[in-house]
Amino acid sequence: MTANHPYDPTFTDRVINSMGPKTNPRLRQLMASLIRHIHDFARENELTVDEWMAGVQMINWAGKMSDEKRNEGQLLCDVIGLESLVDEITYKVVSESDAPTATAILGPFFRADTIARKNGDSIVTGVDDGEMTFMHGQVVDFTTKQPIAGATVEVWQASTNGLYEQQDPNQVEHNLRGKFTTDENGRYWFYCIRPTPYPVPGDGPAGKLLEMMDRHPFRPAHIHILATHDKYKPLVTQIFDRKDQYLTNDSVFAVKDSLIVDFVPRKDDPKASLELNYDVKLVPAEPSS
Amino acid sequence: MTANHPYDPTFTDRVINSMGPKTNPRLRQLMASLIRHIHDFARENELTVDEWMAGVQMINWAGKMSDEKRNEGQLLCDVIGLESLVDEITYKVVSESDAPTATAILGPFFRADTIARKNGDSIVTGVDDGEMTFMHGQVVDFTTKQPIAGATVEVWQASTNGLYEQQDPNQVEHNLRGKFTTDENGRYWFYCIRPTPYPVPGDGPAGKLLEMMDRHPFRPAHIHILATHDKYKPLVTQIFDRKDQYLTNDSVFAVKDSLIVDFVPRKDDPKASLELNYDVKLVPAEPSS
Repeated sequence: MTANHPYDPTFTDRVINSMGPKTNPRLRQLMASLIRHIHDFARENELTVDEWMAGVQMINWAGKMSDEKRNEGQLLCDVIGLESLVDEITYKVVSESDAPTATAILGPFFRADTIARKNGDSIVTGVDDGEMTFMHGQVVDFTTKQPIAGATVEVWQASTNGLYEQQDPNQVEHNLRGKFTTDENGRYWFYCIRPTPYPVPGDGPAGKLLEMMDRHPFRPAHIHILATHDKYKPLVTQIFDRKDQYLTNDSVFAVKDSLIVDFVPRKDDPKASLELNYDVKLVPAEPSS
Repeated sequence: MTANHPYDPTFTDRVINSMGPKTNPRLRQLMASLIRHIHDFARENELTVDEWMAGVQMINWAGKMSDEKRNEGQLLCDVIGLESLVDEITYKVVSESDAPTATAILGPFFRADTIARKNGDSIVTGVDDGEMTFMHGQVVDFTTKQPIAGATVEVWQASTNGLYEQQDPNQVEHNLRGKFTTDENGRYWFYCIRPTPYPVPGDGPAGKLLEMMDRHPFRPAHIHILATHDKYKPLVTQIFDRKDQYLTNDSVFAVKDSLIVDFVPRKDDPKASLELNYDVKLVPAEPSS
């Protein structure tokens, strides 16, 4: 609050205090804090009109590129670590103890209308150069360690060309994604490919910002998982291949040590040369009192 | 830099330090500061994924609405005072002494291709309910007090319906705007209307944000001025009618005391019932060494 700068020391408070009495209290808190931080940012760096306008144009560009299939505003946040940070904050209850599965960002390629598949199915169509993998695991209650039957395990991954199916007109719809339901022992199993690293799109403001910051655009190879059940908190996570070269410098900062997994050789399965075992621990939802 | 919160204390530095060696030094400074402020904002307020996503959607919405004629990203910044603050910062050399004309924001309705008009012309076409005003003044050198001949004085104002010509299909192109050149005595003169207050557009994210913050959208009545001359620093300003009801609570925070002017009765001029005298003091440009 100290004003050790040559600018009008009352300005920021005047802007904040212009909010009227009917403002939602949480919104008032967030806007007051955001206005203070953005004004401090401008003053501390003596931000010029031209620099500010370059930022405005980047934001407008992000909005223009965004549609049902692509969220460039989200991607801009991702490359400065904001989605990962907000994920950490939101799920801190889950991640305070490191025993439940750690969380990671949802990312812009999730589809709410992912199709259901049966355990044992393959999510892979038309990927000739992928390493086929048998992925399986158990969903359990973090507190009781008991298996959770009827849990939904939703997975999605990019193809070997670095594109998710909704980005790629050459992939069949819903390729490399599917929604599985755990059996009476809490188990799920299916075939996928070993994921490969890919760059975030380079044709928009997020790609431009990465280039300006002299950063590479690659995400380490990963599989997205969303695990849900009525009686448990939903879990959004990503699991990463231990052998990936971008594990320590993910362009969107989503890697956590506990999310690194090993793909091991699988024998006697004509459908897959690799195997991945991944168990999910869910935290019970708050009692609805 | 202290980490009195439960979140990974290395995270923000890791994001900042991912910038590569080829990053422009000024960009590195700005991005490091922006990332630190935005991460602090998220942590201090325990920003949730849903709240963050609401912000992303607002930014994407702003981009979608923006085009050649409308800059909604800019307007979002304006309603949180950012353009006024950046204006104050950028022109602090000019405004450090309060003797040169104070500056104000350019705003989203400036046109780079404004047409030239002759002194004595009217910028008004088809405004039946406006109070016609004879505006005139002298452009002088702030240091020598000598008149500046050949200076450009560009003005633009909204019509009585609250719309600038580019927002309003019923106005002729370039209505209520014009570019004048000072005569050998540094003088300019023309006819305009007494400006009236108007709301910033309510159909986009900036209007929505104002509504959520329980704030009115009105700007006090004003005339925009851009004064330029090769040998002087360009001056961007707005002048405000002393009798306006929104003078103390401009929705974009652009009013300064020194920019408030008086419209006085004008006699014996069939073309105008009001008169406005406004002199502009320009600061010499830095010598080009």
